Amino acid sequence: MAVGLWLVGARGSLATTVTTGLSLLSQHAASSHGLVSELPVFGDVELPGYDEIVVGGHDVVDVSLRKRAESLVSGGVLPQTALALTDSTLGEADGRIRFGIGDGENARQSITRVQRDLEEFRQANNLETVIVVNVSSTEAVVEPHLAHDSLQALDVALDAGEAVLPPSSLYAYAALDAGFPFVDFTPSLGASIAALDQLARARRVAYAGRDGKTGETLLKAVLAPMFVQRNLRVTSWAGLNLLGGGDGRSLAEDDRKSAKLTSKARSLREGLGYEVDAPVGIEYVEDMNEWKTAWNQVRFQGFLGTPMTLQLTWQGCDSALAAPLVIDLVRFVALAQRSGEVGALDALAFFFKDPLGGDEHGLVRQFDRLTEWATALEPLT
Amino acid sequence: MAVGLWLVGARGSLATTVTTGLSLLSQHAASSHGLVSELPVFGDVELPGYDEIVVGGHDVVDVSLRKRAESLVSGGVLPQTALALTDSTLGEADGRIRFGIGDGENARQSITRVQRDLEEFRQANNLETVIVVNVSSTEAVVEPHLAHDSLQALDVALDAGEAVLPPSSLYAYAALDAGFPFVDFTPSLGASIAALDQLARARRVAYAGRDGKTGETLLKAVLAPMFVQRNLRVTSWAGLNLLGGGDGRSLAEDDRKSAKLTSKARSLREGLGYEVDAPVGIEYVEDMNEWKTAWNQVRFQGFLGTPMTLQLTWQGCDSALAAPLVIDLVRFVALAQRSGEVGALDALAFFFKDPLGGDEHGLVRQFDRLTEWATALEPLT
Amino acid sequence: MAVGLWLVGARGSLATTVTTGLSLLSQHAASSHGLVSELPVFGDVELPGYDEIVVGGHDVVDVSLRKRAESLVSGGVLPQTALALTDSTLGEADGRIRFGIGDGENARQSITRVQRDLEEFRQANNLETVIVVNVSSTEAVVEPHLAHDSLQALDVALDAGEAVLPPSSLYAYAALDAGFPFVDFTPSLGASIAALDQLARARRVAYAGRDGKTGETLLKAVLAPMFVQRNLRVTSWAGLNLLGGGDGRSLAEDDRKSAKLTSKARSLREGLGYEVDAPVGIEYVEDMNEWKTAWNQVRFQGFLGTPMTLQLTWQGCDSALAAPLVIDLVRFVALAQRSGEVGALDALAFFFKDPLGGDEHGLVRQFDRLTEWATALEPLT
Amino acid sequence: MAVGLWLVGARGSLATTVTTGLSLLSQHAASSHGLVSELPVFGDVELPGYDEIVVGGHDVVDVSLRKRAESLVSGGVLPQTALALTDSTLGEADGRIRFGIGDGENARQSITRVQRDLEEFRQANNLETVIVVNVSSTEAVVEPHLAHDSLQALDVALDAGEAVLPPSSLYAYAALDAGFPFVDFTPSLGASIAALDQLARARRVAYAGRDGKTGETLLKAVLAPMFVQRNLRVTSWAGLNLLGGGDGRSLAEDDRKSAKLTSKARSLREGLGYEVDAPVGIEYVEDMNEWKTAWNQVRFQGFLGTPMTLQLTWQGCDSALAAPLVIDLVRFVALAQRSGEVGALDALAFFFKDPLGGDEHGLVRQFDRLTEWATALEPLT
Repeated sequence: MAVGLWLVGARGSLATTVTTGLSLLSQHAASSHGLVSELPVFGDVELPGYDEIVVGGHDVVDVSLRKRAESLVSGGVLPQTALALTDSTLGEADGRIRFGIGDGENARQSITRVQRDLEEFRQANNLETVIVVNVSSTEAVVEPHLAHDSLQALDVALDAGEAVLPPSSLYAYAALDAGFPFVDFTPSLGASIAALDQLARARRVAYAGRDGKTGETLLKAVLAPMFVQRNLRVTSWAGLNLLGGGDGRSLAEDDRKSAKLTSKARSLREGLGYEVDAPVGIEYVEDMNEWKTAWNQVRFQGFLGTPMTLQLTWQGCDSALAAPLVIDLVRFVALAQRSGEVGALDALAFFFKDPLGGDEHGLVRQFDRLTEWATALEPLT
Repeated sequence: MAVGLWLVGARGSLATTVTTGLSLLSQHAASSHGLVSELPVFGDVELPGYDEIVVGGHDVVDVSLRKRAESLVSGGVLPQTALALTDSTLGEADGRIRFGIGDGENARQSITRVQRDLEEFRQANNLETVIVVNVSSTEAVVEPHLAHDSLQALDVALDAGEAVLPPSSLYAYAALDAGFPFVDFTPSLGASIAALDQLARARRVAYAGRDGKTGETLLKAVLAPMFVQRNLRVTSWAGLNLLGGGDGRSLAEDDRKSAKLTSKARSLREGLGYEVDAPVGIEYVEDMNEWKTAWNQVRFQGFLGTPMTLQLTWQGCDSALAAPLVIDLVRFVALAQRSGEVGALDALAFFFKDPLGGDEHGLVRQFDRLTEWATALEPLT
Repeated sequence: MAVGLWLVGARGSLATTVTTGLSLLSQHAASSHGLVSELPVFGDVELPGYDEIVVGGHDVVDVSLRKRAESLVSGGVLPQTALALTDSTLGEADGRIRFGIGDGENARQSITRVQRDLEEFRQANNLETVIVVNVSSTEAVVEPHLAHDSLQALDVALDAGEAVLPPSSLYAYAALDAGFPFVDFTPSLGASIAALDQLARARRVAYAGRDGKTGETLLKAVLAPMFVQRNLRVTSWAGLNLLGGGDGRSLAEDDRKSAKLTSKARSLREGLGYEVDAPVGIEYVEDMNEWKTAWNQVRFQGFLGTPMTLQLTWQGCDSALAAPLVIDLVRFVALAQRSGEVGALDALAFFFKDPLGGDEHGLVRQFDRLTEWATALEPLT
Repeated sequence: MAVGLWLVGARGSLATTVTTGLSLLSQHAASSHGLVSELPVFGDVELPGYDEIVVGGHDVVDVSLRKRAESLVSGGVLPQTALALTDSTLGEADGRIRFGIGDGENARQSITRVQRDLEEFRQANNLETVIVVNVSSTEAVVEPHLAHDSLQALDVALDAGEAVLPPSSLYAYAALDAGFPFVDFTPSLGASIAALDQLARARRVAYAGRDGKTGETLLKAVLAPMFVQRNLRVTSWAGLNLLGGGDGRSLAEDDRKSAKLTSKARSLREGLGYEVDAPVGIEYVEDMNEWKTAWNQVRFQGFLGTPMTLQLTWQGCDSALAAPLVIDLVRFVALAQRSGEVGALDALAFFFKDPLGGDEHGLVRQFDRLTEWATALEPLT
């Protein structure tokens, strides 16, 4: 029985790469590079096949997936051959995208509408479950609110028509309340509040997040333990991220930037075990299109205080790094749901900058946790 | 009871940094940065204290340790304050350095002379044992020889006056035969032949090696697993090492270079699990003195074959990176010897580019192996 | 007859390097690296000797020059040997530093006090002239004001007690009004307003500025013409400057940052001849002390639009780059003054990011202009 | 009347980019980025139009230009749209390529055959002249030979059947002897010997070379003067070039490498005015295809000997950088020939790493020389 993948931000670069990629994988027209779930260690784990995943989603823009795929081809993210091979699939997926949460309705109305869309999607495609994955733009940081701390307080506030949740959390509420898993691939608030954890447990549904670990933070997750294990004291870790494309434009807005940077800083501090001077800049550079350059300068002290330096330049394409992880997450979360897992899936920390429900920031230990967990899961019958 | 550290290459930059560093640590005049054995996880392990390690060694040059220390201060490797604090210790250590293996004697004569020096050192300083550590210049690659394959064949060849062993292996023979542990911090042949493994087992003594993992290879040991665990295919890993100082000058000689490069390539191939195009250059740049710059360009494929690039620039000082590892090795090997460990210490793979007796090339797993081993050892009484 | 060098910011890293450097040069204890005025092309130009330059200045802090020199030695900017050789000179210079413009007096009072200090300095040291050079921290950007546009309007505003000038411009006013040349090595307002140009012409005195071209902008000044002459279209030029020390701390304040960035952007735009996306970050990284790393990513289009990339990493010490330029400027300005030059010295554009009185931004053409001008000047008798 | 461009190496990446580019330019289907001859300063110079240049050439391989163009499209060098637009032009050019100098004939036979091909090409296309441009693989270094020093000696040797000239020089001989200009875009011997200079003067024909200045050396040509003009002493300039494609494969052969490196080193030494430690590596990295990464580390001393570092990473596509220069050269050489210029065209030094007939290595001065020369030329009537 098939599984639904409901993408919030379904017309963005990442979502389009996921949708195109799934189609190519189903046709055996793409290699499995970048897919963690294809590693030999997961060979015996019963994960859904690529042709068993049906894509739909929400978005507030209306560019067609085909149009978007064309620009990903000219940006060097998708291969030229992808267009012809996925043309009909993209057309179908396009028809399953609904208008996302915008202005003009209150929170309860949005939740109800989203739930109706999800249920309709499930029934129309005869799906076992629907996994909602947030891949939309990063939201501005949301101030803590008392209504975030308990489900009861949250429900009171929502009933009173108070605007206490950003869209990412409204999607999370809608999904979890309807018994569908929720994954936040962005640093937005999403399901990361106590109230929604209570909701997930009450509905016996799993969730995971947040902020996909694609590039610079991936490096930090292996380099920080290296410095720790060699007892080399890091004295500063400064960096600059240059981003093109839609992601860059929105991140360069100051309040969204700060959401991103908070997530990055936490990851480094927990990896090293101490505070370190770590200024990180994010700049939008239009001509980079879908690409990203991250430059880092790490300064550290060796024996007898000798100062040394490591510089890193990462030139990657976020959509191409993130898309296979989104597919991996859908597969692992589908398995978790089948196996009766409930609440924050800390075993998926490997995929996130700021993992919910876990505190291990070293990549290798996160990988061990993932493999132990996934190979031990047994689908309920 | 004190332990002897016998450095082959005792007047080089690394040996001088080790000797000075031990003195500063004994006086509590240096922090423990860079020393793995000082990590909290080893807090309950009974390792020899810094003031329980007596330094001696062999060398074929005769520059004084003080002179060498002065040039390390002006090169920014040792702090200015080190000179006054270690003046008398360096003078004493100087007096314990003997002339190394050179021309004019055959292999048996060299072995006998080295053993006499070691035994004299042990008695004069009332030492429990003497750990011989090779930190001399990298030797040219030695062709395999039948005499390397068994102790019996080796003894026959040595008795016949055949020159089948390079100096590093003569030191290893001398040490092991006399019941003293041997550690090779260089990529030279050292104890890495079956004949010497047999000798070590026959004399019930431990040995470790080879080629200290200080900079570029340290990075490879954490980055290669990262690419593997993320299923990102590395398509090339090219690099250039610019070295100043004595180490640079000798490595730039073509046959020594090739010994070094072989060791680096093996490490990468085993870390990734497949062959990859990995040209590495080594160049001597006089004005870099004690410093080293390693630049690496790693190209890899993400999802759908999208090519991406990671560049690394490592600017470090090899002596300052290697010295604490040499001290760590002496402490761990002393413990191993007290605990009755025999043969190649594969648990020390964490310290080496080309670990003897083990095949784990991921740094985190090597670290786990080290901590499990060290915390479980129990000194024989 | 000697010339006075009056440093505004006389106790900073740059001023201390200038003062120490002049003393070492006078004693023939330093090579002439970094000094443009020592190039063979200026061999016949009659510039003041290093022992003919007497240093004094203003500052608002009271750390001693010796103390400051010690920290420059430990930061690797000055050689260890400098301290003993310059001890007495630094002591004397210390005695010639007066308290700078701070709070508690109005503009006219500040100007009068500064002029008294300058005149006293001139007489006490029997100086031919005093050249005031601003090397203090960059000021926040000053809004344009009508009083900046004519000397008459400025004088009316100052007489009315209005605070229309920042300290840098008060120093410039004081110097020019007293007939002493003024040089602004910072991007502050200084003498860059029409009112002060009129004052300089009225008093028949020369001035120069602004913002010394030491590192990243020096590179831009040669690379921008290269792209232009090869008809390669630059599509973005993004960068990050990591600064330690006092300079870094003050530049990281947002309004000062913006003064610096405006100056950098103008230079690039004029060098290329068109607007380009050029985000530049400045971050303070405490552990870098006196050092600076500037990373730049330049993207450009080759034939048929093929996108290419140049990355630059500049690791320098601003004080060591700037100090010889300050000395050069004093020498050339002294010559200009002797030769009757009046107003903005556009021939000194070679030294500045944002040259006053000139619009040539290519380094080679600026160099040609400098050499033609300097070799043609004839001191009035 | 049209001009012929005869490419030696006519089926390589560079030649194919030139041929495709000329076709696109003729159709106004490409911008003029990268073309120096399109700069406004040359607006009044009468250069041949793109549609007045007919392409032919020699090669020893037989891959079709269309095939080659396809792989340049997939390598990101040519735009996707280029294929349809240039299909017929590439087909025609293909028909004008003859088999190059290979084994099985002696020098005189090769020269005669080449001359016949050139003359046939000229007549068939009704060309005013034919400009032969060598863009084939770099040859191994050729030992100096007495026959290179005078035309008379050379002719004697050739008549005697001696193999004293490599192919590049045979092409040069054939062209010049037939009264056609010759340009060497490679570091091969070509026309750079006294004997061929005499031949060119005897036949009153112009020639130019050698080794197109496309990437790393272009940077050196602007950075070296910067260090000189700032009196900053460069102490080392080390680098590594990583090359893919055919060019990379052949350059990685040791003797060809050495030809390339000699040319690079000379350029740096002449730019700085002194010898500097400048090891340069060249490595072939298959997965880079048509692309090249050059990494450079420049170390220099500032004031009082403070050591600083500049690192450069150049990621470019040699064909896209070189193709417009080849087109520029044809246009300028056609003009020179029309204007009666004879011998080495030193005014074209701007285009070459190792300019024949000139000794100016600073890019800006070379540019000035080029513009003065070109704007002053008057075609003979």
